[in-house]
Amino acid sequence: MTTHERPAGPDDVTGTAPAPAPGAGADGDAGADARGVPATVVADPARLADTVELLGLVAQLEQVAFARLAADSAVAPTTDQRLQLSRFAAAAITRRDAVLARIVELGADPVAAIGQFDHVLDDFDARTQPSSWWERLLKAYVGYGVADDFCRLAADALDEESRRVVLAVLDDAAHAELAVAELDAAGADDGVLSARLALWGRRLVGEALGVVQRLLVQRPGLARLVAPSDAAPAPAVADQQASGVAAPANPPTKVFGELTAQHTRRMSRLGLTA
Amino acid sequence: MTTHERPAGPDDVTGTAPAPAPGAGADGDAGADARGVPATVVADPARLADTVELLGLVAQLEQVAFARLAADSAVAPTTDQRLQLSRFAAAAITRRDAVLARIVELGADPVAAIGQFDHVLDDFDARTQPSSWWERLLKAYVGYGVADDFCRLAADALDEESRRVVLAVLDDAAHAELAVAELDAAGADDGVLSARLALWGRRLVGEALGVVQRLLVQRPGLARLVAPSDAAPAPAVADQQASGVAAPANPPTKVFGELTAQHTRRMSRLGLTA
Repeated sequence: MTTHERPAGPDDVTGTAPAPAPGAGADGDAGADARGVPATVVADPARLADTVELLGLVAQLEQVAFARLAADSAVAPTTDQRLQLSRFAAAAITRRDAVLARIVELGADPVAAIGQFDHVLDDFDARTQPSSWWERLLKAYVGYGVADDFCRLAADALDEESRRVVLAVLDDAAHAELAVAELDAAGADDGVLSARLALWGRRLVGEALGVVQRLLVQRPGLARLVAPSDAAPAPAVADQQASGVAAPANPPTKVFGELTAQHTRRMSRLGLTA
Repeated sequence: MTTHERPAGPDDVTGTAPAPAPGAGADGDAGADARGVPATVVADPARLADTVELLGLVAQLEQVAFARLAADSAVAPTTDQRLQLSRFAAAAITRRDAVLARIVELGADPVAAIGQFDHVLDDFDARTQPSSWWERLLKAYVGYGVADDFCRLAADALDEESRRVVLAVLDDAAHAELAVAELDAAGADDGVLSARLALWGRRLVGEALGVVQRLLVQRPGLARLVAPSDAAPAPAVADQQASGVAAPANPPTKVFGELTAQHTRRMSRLGLTA
């Protein structure tokens, strides 16, 4: 998605981006140090803090995915599913650790970064207790799918390496494929189940969007990352200071439009009405 | 130990092992095919079944360890412990998959092999519900330690490659180290806790030995693997044939002696009375 990328304009060259190097002069390649940490991130403590905040959230979502997949594995109807689901759970830990490693590279504390989101989905989980194996699968696919989409949107505003790490983590869709295959097979010959799951999907997306809304209110750093002005490739210093660091007045409605559209796409893959 | 490897005799060359290459003597390395499956295992369906049975049990124990570590991670007192414990859980899945891969190499069905032990520790878990974080840690260290020791003993009777896989899996003691460090630190300055944990340890080992006893009664294959006649370094072929395949009349008391000794060693590492 390129919704947030402003076209590069004349004001861009005066920003914190590396100056065009006359024979790699004083500023040549000053934009990144040996760890792949762009100078803009290091030089701007507020932007660094926002980056670490998003990385902490992504790591926590993987931790939550691990716990959920492990629990799913314990109640899976067949041994084969148990084996697969616990393998997915283990993969979530590998992904989480990749994100934590990036936080360390940025010089921040990984335990504090993930720990601040320890209970981020507790409310969501309490309100959306699945009552069947199918509801459980759909919750994984739809509910956490919204959270992933949100992180993907916010990742557009990160430095290149952090964005690469986040997108790689979020794109590992093996578990989604399992959910799709099983739900599709189950719903195909059961109209009652399909209707019930469509209703469940609407409930899940409503609760999930509520989580995003609360996050944007409680976490100005995340709000800044998805704010349209922040997503410009290299904003002017003055703009950046004035608008980039302050939290935007309203949670961007564009974000919710995008999340809803992705949800609709996801449900239609299952042959369910969003 | 090479307990089950019959000295290559005339009967070996007529098995399913690949014909000896010209130039390699009649018996030269005919004992193993390209997958590392010894001809003795392949040629002897009963011994192959026993091997797969033990591998299934080891795989299941790793699956159970995964589920337990994942649950421990969910209730860990600190974020740091949560991160570590879920990492250990993920490692258990890697180990489980190594064992399942060996089952596939032996030409058996990994899902059936692990699935037959799906509820092997359910009773044990129901009878030993930890009431504190420390009891939980001790249960992991002591309770499942007995199961691991049993598998280690039985592994002596496997073909070389299967034994290597099992011992590698059981020797990955990172989680035990965590339990030891934490329990040691906690017990050092709390006599009441130490006394309580010593009592808990006795309860755990009693229940764990009960599990082993039931397994040996219900699973003649496992009983055959730990039967004393099998443990002789190089038994005569005739003895091996006669006694090695039939289930022994009594569960070997030597096994229980060994398991109890290991338990005592384990408790004393914690400064607790066994």
